[in-house]
Amino acid sequence: MSDTFHAMWRSLRPIGRSDASGGYRRYAWTGADAECRLWFQAQAEARGLDYEVDRNGNQWAWLGDPSRGDAVVTGSHLDSVPDGGAFDGPLGVVSSFAALDELRSRKVAFRRPLAITNFGDEEGARFGLACVGSRLTAGKLTVEAAHQLTDADGVTLPQAMEAAGYDPQSIGPDPERLARIGAFVELHVEQGRALDLTGDPVGIASAIWPHGRWRFDFRGEANHAGTTRLVDRRDPMLTYAETVLAARREAELAGAVATFGKISVEPNGVNAIPSLVRGWLDSRAADQSTLDTVVTGIEKAAREYADRHGIDLDVVRESFTPVVEFEHALRDELGTILGGSEGREVPVLGTGAGHDAGILSESIPTAMLFVRNPTGISHSPAEFAAEDDCVAGVTALADVLEGLACR
Amino acid sequence: MSDTFHAMWRSLRPIGRSDASGGYRRYAWTGADAECRLWFQAQAEARGLDYEVDRNGNQWAWLGDPSRGDAVVTGSHLDSVPDGGAFDGPLGVVSSFAALDELRSRKVAFRRPLAITNFGDEEGARFGLACVGSRLTAGKLTVEAAHQLTDADGVTLPQAMEAAGYDPQSIGPDPERLARIGAFVELHVEQGRALDLTGDPVGIASAIWPHGRWRFDFRGEANHAGTTRLVDRRDPMLTYAETVLAARREAELAGAVATFGKISVEPNGVNAIPSLVRGWLDSRAADQSTLDTVVTGIEKAAREYADRHGIDLDVVRESFTPVVEFEHALRDELGTILGGSEGREVPVLGTGAGHDAGILSESIPTAMLFVRNPTGISHSPAEFAAEDDCVAGVTALADVLEGLACR
Repeated sequence: MSDTFHAMWRSLRPIGRSDASGGYRRYAWTGADAECRLWFQAQAEARGLDYEVDRNGNQWAWLGDPSRGDAVVTGSHLDSVPDGGAFDGPLGVVSSFAALDELRSRKVAFRRPLAITNFGDEEGARFGLACVGSRLTAGKLTVEAAHQLTDADGVTLPQAMEAAGYDPQSIGPDPERLARIGAFVELHVEQGRALDLTGDPVGIASAIWPHGRWRFDFRGEANHAGTTRLVDRRDPMLTYAETVLAARREAELAGAVATFGKISVEPNGVNAIPSLVRGWLDSRAADQSTLDTVVTGIEKAAREYADRHGIDLDVVRESFTPVVEFEHALRDELGTILGGSEGREVPVLGTGAGHDAGILSESIPTAMLFVRNPTGISHSPAEFAAEDDCVAGVTALADVLEGLACR
Repeated sequence: MSDTFHAMWRSLRPIGRSDASGGYRRYAWTGADAECRLWFQAQAEARGLDYEVDRNGNQWAWLGDPSRGDAVVTGSHLDSVPDGGAFDGPLGVVSSFAALDELRSRKVAFRRPLAITNFGDEEGARFGLACVGSRLTAGKLTVEAAHQLTDADGVTLPQAMEAAGYDPQSIGPDPERLARIGAFVELHVEQGRALDLTGDPVGIASAIWPHGRWRFDFRGEANHAGTTRLVDRRDPMLTYAETVLAARREAELAGAVATFGKISVEPNGVNAIPSLVRGWLDSRAADQSTLDTVVTGIEKAAREYADRHGIDLDVVRESFTPVVEFEHALRDELGTILGGSEGREVPVLGTGAGHDAGILSESIPTAMLFVRNPTGISHSPAEFAAEDDCVAGVTALADVLEGLACR
């Protein structure tokens, strides 16, 4: 396994990597994304798999005839957040091919069709909505809404797909495809420190916290920063700042997380009081009612501040994903397979991160494996997983695929 | 006067205007800037003035022989802040030409050479430093520093000048030119509400508050917004928010102004805790020691917050202009001219805004006239001056020029 595993990492490593930050900028339908897709196709063909791209631009590599149904599918995504790490996404795709190599070296016989996937636009870095590829396939994003997605340069998703050589008119739900899948298993680097704290290289996902994105538009009045008296100002930056701090307080109180990580300011001049400060809130909690409490609390605080400063506030929920409980039967089956004959206990953990597996979980049985992340850092060039743990992940995935597809 | 005055506004109005915002985007050495420059040249030539561009790209239109010395110069600038108003800058240039038309209709004889100017890059919207044209001319910006000015797209000032057809190698101090000037008078729309409160259409400047720009770099650790526990975060957005609020508090306490109007965030992703939040502080006060108190207080508060959140903070002073007291003799002369035979009291007011007149005031006698701004709004599409007040401004400027150059 080791040789092809290393070769895969070596060939992926330079694609979309910023020399300045050391992080990855693999955004949907860009040149870096196209290179990642060529890489996937090459890996599929090198293994004699049947390569195809579905109507939503997701890539598939098949072993066995998909029309037989009840397929076992594994994979993840290759796109990244801005200046993301090397593992979030790619570890799942690389491990899928490596697990297949491992199973072939074990000379197992496949009773069910097997596929490896690369879902498009998982991170939503370009168009602001995560998991566009899997959402479309699962019918959880309408074609109309997808056609209106627009990036920061005003390029729409259809324009971007067309520029990348794909047909944006073909996108839409794909129930026939999903009906042929019996189980989807996604391996992913952990994005917290739970496995580091328990001392395990690999764990199984229990649930994905409900989470959403809210856009807060604070509108004030542009004016000269040098000559406008403080009492005459309607400065939306003040209201934004108060809201950022309120978000932290509300999340702390509730044991949830809330983050303002993206901002856009107009006119964004050093000597101009802004007319508009637009901030995006990302918030997640273990359950729906906690998340509601947090977001309601933040919005209430923001409205109070806005009223005090003469600021107009619009809050728009841009996306929302309810809690995902991964199917218990499949999760237990993974626990049994990985526990081995001695019935070892494998950690089962929740996560605040969204994944294609979460999107698909309403349509088909899905499960996730997490590989230990010693610092918990993710979405950063510092994201890391030790080689031994990556190898343990591949072995675990191979065991799971063998258990599901070969017995 | 009225006809040429209206014609000048009509021809200037569409240049660099954004249909989306209704504001102006006339940045140094862009296409809009070039159009403004052609407009200035056409106005000069239509009046039979001697047109020239100095080594720093400032435009001059001469009536009479500059080599005679002791010239009276008036003018302002035509560039704008992002989405700026129609008056900040252009009112001074348009009024200069209109005042010359008025003086010619009065059939006065000029005893001193007269010039109208358009100083380049007053607002500093593109390269981050205000008054580049006058600073270079007055030797208050070194050629080396000017050559290193870079816009948001990485284009340097020399590259931008060259692209616009100017020679960046020629820039530098121009003491011979300044030595020929006996007085510089800049007319400008007021950027506060002092004249509105006193009920006067025109006032005279006393001083420009000391002011500066400071860049605050808050460095934390990029991480996943969904999976990173609050206690594990080093989120620089929190420290930025606390600093924004501290700036307001410090300015309020001191009777000064302080503004964070520009921000840049990395990676600026909705689901990423930022690694870097860069905020620019603009602060001004009536005197130096008050300004020092405000900025020291803000920086102290920022460092305390930074320490608490594990944030690294760098504070860089990007520009600074000490207090400018306009020359008392010239200021008094303007007061006498505008007060007329009945010795009417003309308001004398300080301002928080920087101007080319402030930059030049160390080298030559300078003065400023302000035209009433009924809302005080500036650096915004809503910036406004009533037509009657603009006409009063032209008349006042004509009176001043006649008093200085013709008696």
